Amino acid sequence: MNENVNGGLRDNTLYVIPLGGLEEVGGLNMTVLEYNGDIVVIDAGLMFPEEDMLGIDFVIPDFTYLLENREKIRGIVITHGHEDHVGALPFMLKELPVPVFGTPLTIGLIREKLKEHHLEDSEMHAVRPRGRISLGVFDIEFIRVTHSIVDGVALGIETPVGRVIHTGDFKVDPTPVDGELLDFKTFAEYGEKGTALLLSDSTNAEKGGFTFSEKEVRRAFENVFARAKGRIIISTFSSNIHRIQQAIDVAASYGRKVVLCGRSIVSNAQIALDLGYLKIPRETWLKLENLKDVPDDQAVIITTGSQGEPMSVLTRIATGEHKQIQIKEGDTVVLSAKMIPGNERSIGRIINHLFKRGANVIYEKVSEIHVSGHASKEELKLLMNLVKPKYFMPVHGEYRHLCIHAGLAAKQGIPRENIFIMGNGDILEISPEGAVQAGKVGTGRVFIDGKGDVEEMVLRDRMRIAHDGVVIVLLGVEKLTGGIISGPDVVSRGFIFEDASPEFVSDVKDFLSETIAGLDKEIIADSALLQAKIRSTLKKYLRNTLDRRPLIMPIIMEV
Amino acid sequence: MNENVNGGLRDNTLYVIPLGGLEEVGGLNMTVLEYNGDIVVIDAGLMFPEEDMLGIDFVIPDFTYLLENREKIRGIVITHGHEDHVGALPFMLKELPVPVFGTPLTIGLIREKLKEHHLEDSEMHAVRPRGRISLGVFDIEFIRVTHSIVDGVALGIETPVGRVIHTGDFKVDPTPVDGELLDFKTFAEYGEKGTALLLSDSTNAEKGGFTFSEKEVRRAFENVFARAKGRIIISTFSSNIHRIQQAIDVAASYGRKVVLCGRSIVSNAQIALDLGYLKIPRETWLKLENLKDVPDDQAVIITTGSQGEPMSVLTRIATGEHKQIQIKEGDTVVLSAKMIPGNERSIGRIINHLFKRGANVIYEKVSEIHVSGHASKEELKLLMNLVKPKYFMPVHGEYRHLCIHAGLAAKQGIPRENIFIMGNGDILEISPEGAVQAGKVGTGRVFIDGKGDVEEMVLRDRMRIAHDGVVIVLLGVEKLTGGIISGPDVVSRGFIFEDASPEFVSDVKDFLSETIAGLDKEIIADSALLQAKIRSTLKKYLRNTLDRRPLIMPIIMEV
Repeated sequence: MNENVNGGLRDNTLYVIPLGGLEEVGGLNMTVLEYNGDIVVIDAGLMFPEEDMLGIDFVIPDFTYLLENREKIRGIVITHGHEDHVGALPFMLKELPVPVFGTPLTIGLIREKLKEHHLEDSEMHAVRPRGRISLGVFDIEFIRVTHSIVDGVALGIETPVGRVIHTGDFKVDPTPVDGELLDFKTFAEYGEKGTALLLSDSTNAEKGGFTFSEKEVRRAFENVFARAKGRIIISTFSSNIHRIQQAIDVAASYGRKVVLCGRSIVSNAQIALDLGYLKIPRETWLKLENLKDVPDDQAVIITTGSQGEPMSVLTRIATGEHKQIQIKEGDTVVLSAKMIPGNERSIGRIINHLFKRGANVIYEKVSEIHVSGHASKEELKLLMNLVKPKYFMPVHGEYRHLCIHAGLAAKQGIPRENIFIMGNGDILEISPEGAVQAGKVGTGRVFIDGKGDVEEMVLRDRMRIAHDGVVIVLLGVEKLTGGIISGPDVVSRGFIFEDASPEFVSDVKDFLSETIAGLDKEIIADSALLQAKIRSTLKKYLRNTLDRRPLIMPIIMEV
Repeated sequence: MNENVNGGLRDNTLYVIPLGGLEEVGGLNMTVLEYNGDIVVIDAGLMFPEEDMLGIDFVIPDFTYLLENREKIRGIVITHGHEDHVGALPFMLKELPVPVFGTPLTIGLIREKLKEHHLEDSEMHAVRPRGRISLGVFDIEFIRVTHSIVDGVALGIETPVGRVIHTGDFKVDPTPVDGELLDFKTFAEYGEKGTALLLSDSTNAEKGGFTFSEKEVRRAFENVFARAKGRIIISTFSSNIHRIQQAIDVAASYGRKVVLCGRSIVSNAQIALDLGYLKIPRETWLKLENLKDVPDDQAVIITTGSQGEPMSVLTRIATGEHKQIQIKEGDTVVLSAKMIPGNERSIGRIINHLFKRGANVIYEKVSEIHVSGHASKEELKLLMNLVKPKYFMPVHGEYRHLCIHAGLAAKQGIPRENIFIMGNGDILEISPEGAVQAGKVGTGRVFIDGKGDVEEMVLRDRMRIAHDGVVIVLLGVEKLTGGIISGPDVVSRGFIFEDASPEFVSDVKDFLSETIAGLDKEIIADSALLQAKIRSTLKKYLRNTLDRRPLIMPIIMEV
């Protein structure tokens, strides 16, 4: 799988190798920094499957390169606790037990996740913003950023060839909920001391202007609370502690009590409470079992399921399958989240169900109930002008995002030849002589389905049978004589409903019988040949009669 | 399939029965009006498949109700030429050869479509806006609206119980490209004379304010043309004649020549040219084969593929598979269309490819290069206030759109009990005594795959095997003795790649052999029992070992 054409690395050269996150939005983020014998890894994210990855639970980067260089790895540094930055960590730590570094909340979230994989004994270190660690030749500073999760950082990395900044995910929120701004001072210091390379978040590079502050959502919540006459159910991402905090604050100001409902939101909130990132007034917190004792106009339920996930609390509420919470006339349901592309239809279905049960539903399309966590164009420009990098590499995005982000950098005066639009596995070399993109390490995507990974070949078969089903032809052949002793029988799945089309099935059998009767005994005696013959003639027959292309599996039983 | 619980219809009562379009956005639009012995059908639309309709080409409404009442049908009236209003017509006309009525362009587009289905001999009538037709007891007036296709109309229907208006799809464009406004005067006349029932387009009921005029796109085109130094490639919907006209007009004003490229766009443009809806200056029109003779800064290519359709011209250009057109540095590609939900990822991939080949790509997210064809909230309110209906039925939308649209109507003073949020197949009765929703006719969706329809059962199997594949267990059993004479063998598709996991396959075989060895001879001799046993034990085994749930097909060959 790995075709490392970069066998011998040169000394005194910094190698920057993105293993994932450069061909996808929201996923697989993983970057390798290597200098002489030292490797530091930044982030280890997963990606949720695209629509053609049938049956896949999630996708992780192929980290063969790290396995082959395991003795060089000094540690992995995580910028923040979102799945697309930490989700591959359990898979990586299983094979590469290296120390993990992150801010306190990030480590708290990781610790919980590792427990599920029985990896709680992994070496983990919590580092606060402005804290520093040394990993081999690299000196790494944690620089606070604002994002849709608390305690996110950029990394400022001192290397022998100059300073490298990796932004992680960020936006420039002028009014953060906790009052903790992005660390302008530190970024500016890097700009003044000189930065060799900036790797910056391209997720929102398509968007003009500034991203709204997280605080804007508070105003939207206040509008909802001012009008709601019954219960208020708010669904959001379980990791968005500030969103949850704002819902709680507004609820408290309206004298409402709050139930947190759903495994992930309760677990994340507990971690955030323990670490002091979330505050719930004692009189506001309500247990689910006491919800029934509170009048509707004093109740708020905060939960997950804003993406229409089938097993989530919100979906179960919407379809009437939740044991404790049933929607009633007068309820207000707020989906405080972006509709992630690919999820619109399932989210739409949930909204329809909620409306049908009498709720008033407030969602992104009808109200400003969500803001993004990623920097828009003006913020991206601001950050590069603060940091003043010599070299620039847009990260976190598909090619179009990287390309547009690169265009912004060029307009800010970074010479085109100093801007590197790379793909996963591409290698950027930085030495005192300059920077050059050269070579590639093996990389790719690993598809996780259930407990194991899945080959691409299997995925292709799934696509094929998913579209036109599978047709199995059974034939018993006497080995010696080449005589047909049973069949041809035809069984199918996902092709036609055989009980409803008995004539068609019998037509197919007749066609096959005729075909086989016309074959030479020698072909019949050779099961590989016979299979090929059945496959090709039946394929043509089904294309002509039904215009369908099922997977055809001839099964010959030789007796 | 049809459960018409409305067996005996009462005399002197108008029945309004939506057979499709009330549970979906952009699809299946079909409404039946019935009075005494007369039926008129409004529109016959298809829907493109949702992500879980694997292998389905498109979906049409189940029109069993019409088949059962064929002798009553006086005609079908089409509001405009979009697929979600005409796409089911060929399937309907094959079984119900009734006369078709529409405006000249709509009929022109239908004629072309019917040719492909060898139905060009169908009875078709072109009617201009403000024209009237009589179909049985119904007097129908065509009322001009503005929409993203030329020559769209609403229908004003005089019935013995009062006037009914069906808006079709519309927006209130203050500056239409051809200067033809929505027919305010006629709508206002209905309002003054009195309208019993308004059925109105709910597609954009979630959107506040007014939808932008189609003319706004001209300004965006002018910005693109002012900056482009090379060729300009514009992709849009082939039916959006006004969009194409504006691209041509701006091209002409910049002295550029225009190539129309792609089957559907050429065919639609030809129909529109013949009927006078499109005008191309002679010196502007260029043939594809002459493109190479024109300098890049004088060339414009207009084509389709704005949804990332795999076989479209734009996709082939983007992936380097188009024979005559290769992207080069300096090309500007404009996707002048909405990203339809579900298509974002494939559109994104096309944009990535175009950027990689050096084009500058301009699309909805980065520029105001598209406007919607559907009325936003203010326009919806304006129309109901013009028409002043006694009863109101929101149509064209999922439940949430209908619900929000109904809320607008209530705010405009239509009593809640006069507003009918219905589902497909629901029956609204209007008589001099009043309006009441009562009963239901059988309806549903028919899935078209290739040349035929597909049962729901087959779709469910496809979903199942799509996610975890199919595992086939083969076993040869001697009928008389119950002895195993061959197998168990295991073949799979879309499950695991057997060559890569030989140990797992042999584990499964061993497990099955043990299971079978432990079975009573009687069970082995009864193939139905044996199949059930194999299915249940293997299911459990695969869930425990791999956490996967493939479709298991035990095949017993008895000799």
